Amino acid sequence: MVALGGGHGLYASLSALRRVTTDVTAVVTVADDGGSSGRLRRELGVLPPGDLRMALAALCGDDEWGSTWSEVVQHRFRSGGELHGHAVGNLLIVALWELLGDSVAALDWVGQLLGAHGRVLPMSSVPLDIVAEVEGADPDRPDEVVTVRGQVACASTRGRVRSISLIPDRPPVPSQVIRAVHEADWVVFGPGSWFTSVLPHLLVPDLARALVTTRARRLVALNLSPQRGETDGFAAHTYLEVLADHAPELRVDVVLADRKGVEDAVRLERVAAGLGARLVLADLAVDDGSPRHDPDRFAEAFDQVFAD
Amino acid sequence: MVALGGGHGLYASLSALRRVTTDVTAVVTVADDGGSSGRLRRELGVLPPGDLRMALAALCGDDEWGSTWSEVVQHRFRSGGELHGHAVGNLLIVALWELLGDSVAALDWVGQLLGAHGRVLPMSSVPLDIVAEVEGADPDRPDEVVTVRGQVACASTRGRVRSISLIPDRPPVPSQVIRAVHEADWVVFGPGSWFTSVLPHLLVPDLARALVTTRARRLVALNLSPQRGETDGFAAHTYLEVLADHAPELRVDVVLADRKGVEDAVRLERVAAGLGARLVLADLAVDDGSPRHDPDRFAEAFDQVFAD
Repeated sequence: MVALGGGHGLYASLSALRRVTTDVTAVVTVADDGGSSGRLRRELGVLPPGDLRMALAALCGDDEWGSTWSEVVQHRFRSGGELHGHAVGNLLIVALWELLGDSVAALDWVGQLLGAHGRVLPMSSVPLDIVAEVEGADPDRPDEVVTVRGQVACASTRGRVRSISLIPDRPPVPSQVIRAVHEADWVVFGPGSWFTSVLPHLLVPDLARALVTTRARRLVALNLSPQRGETDGFAAHTYLEVLADHAPELRVDVVLADRKGVEDAVRLERVAAGLGARLVLADLAVDDGSPRHDPDRFAEAFDQVFAD
Repeated sequence: MVALGGGHGLYASLSALRRVTTDVTAVVTVADDGGSSGRLRRELGVLPPGDLRMALAALCGDDEWGSTWSEVVQHRFRSGGELHGHAVGNLLIVALWELLGDSVAALDWVGQLLGAHGRVLPMSSVPLDIVAEVEGADPDRPDEVVTVRGQVACASTRGRVRSISLIPDRPPVPSQVIRAVHEADWVVFGPGSWFTSVLPHLLVPDLARALVTTRARRLVALNLSPQRGETDGFAAHTYLEVLADHAPELRVDVVLADRKGVEDAVRLERVAAGLGARLVLADLAVDDGSPRHDPDRFAEAFDQVFAD
């Protein structure tokens, strides 16, 4: 099982997948330029570690050892000083990168520390920058298309993201990533920030080729709700249309969406079918009305799809 | 076996003691106010973690797991930015303190991570400040006695330290420290920065009482050479005289000194006898002429003393 994404979306899919399989590999976006990760990236020239750390924490062992070290790596310093906002796990990952000089081996050490149920890999061995073509970023010029660079800027733009690209445009991919994609039974895209966490995998040529040619089946898990900024105003089917725009060759087997989050199921089903996919609707969200996946419901949906 | 001290001196005694016993408890000075520890203490209001981290690293497991995590905790960031100079283990210890709210339990977690051969405890559960009475700090006024506050200031003074005291003067001592001192067969003082790492233990009333009343035997390991600043110009016997000045009730069983570092063995033997101790001279230093203990020689000397 390979799960692609970054940030809170990937945390949600991993929290569900760990309930239904013992063999998950997360392939994580490394384009973050904000917060603790952005500071580390600028100060030390390393990959942004934050999304990798969150993915490792999502897979942590169930015992006191795993849960305590998971709390430690997720812990953030709060102060009026220079450490404020840094997550401990980010610092730990970066230290291992500096010591071992091998981004994959270092993450495996942290995975061992956490007793992780699976493996966490970076989608590229170099830091990436996301570049977006954005329409109407300036409210006074609604038709103007401007170029926005950086994950934070893209995710928070007031305009509509039309397309994204990466700098560098042909980044190196760890061999372990390519192998995991080819050996998987299922590859899961999303949920997550669509332009800045989910689509980037399809813009890395070596990774995209593996994702298109693998014999694994492909599942796209849609977001529960549009994200202010980058996917403001998106309908469920819009996610798929944008995916198809960025990866015309990709075939999909299953589109998984929250039943309550879909307004036009007929249209969604038609767009999914255009990608080769059947649509599965299920109750995936928590009950309190917040746009978060319930890990048990999400796991149950995965389980049924994988069993079919 | 209980080893008292801080910094590089304690690292040396622990590196030797781990070779001759499986049951070491280090009781570590928490008065550092310089470097990474000083910054963390000021920014987050915690105990200075650096000497605790070094002691844990000295006791790390022998396998790849222990040695790798030991390298990680000892790793220091180098940059032009806010993380520069911070040791990773300091950040890890502080995070565990913040999470668990228990300074001893947090250190036990790091000890477990490292597979440590023993336990590392802080001599007090609150940060301490060392205050020194210093003579001739100003070269133009050689007879003037001034008060200097802080470990860095005391250790680097150009004058002669006459005596030290602590702020607060009755700090709380973890119960585990008192118990370890009472249950030990041997208590080892030094080597290390005499005024700022070795003597402070004797100035904490609850700890000093345990050190004076324990049925454990007491060994004082002298430094190989005077330390620029605080013990400039010290002869071997001066260390003992200063010790006696600060803890008149303390009886000592063995004084261990480097054979080549002692100029006047007769006088040293007489001063040691005044404390109740026999003098043991041995070759303890490395061969390259630098003032460092050779762990194997130091261990052999400990072993012979403990066997007698």
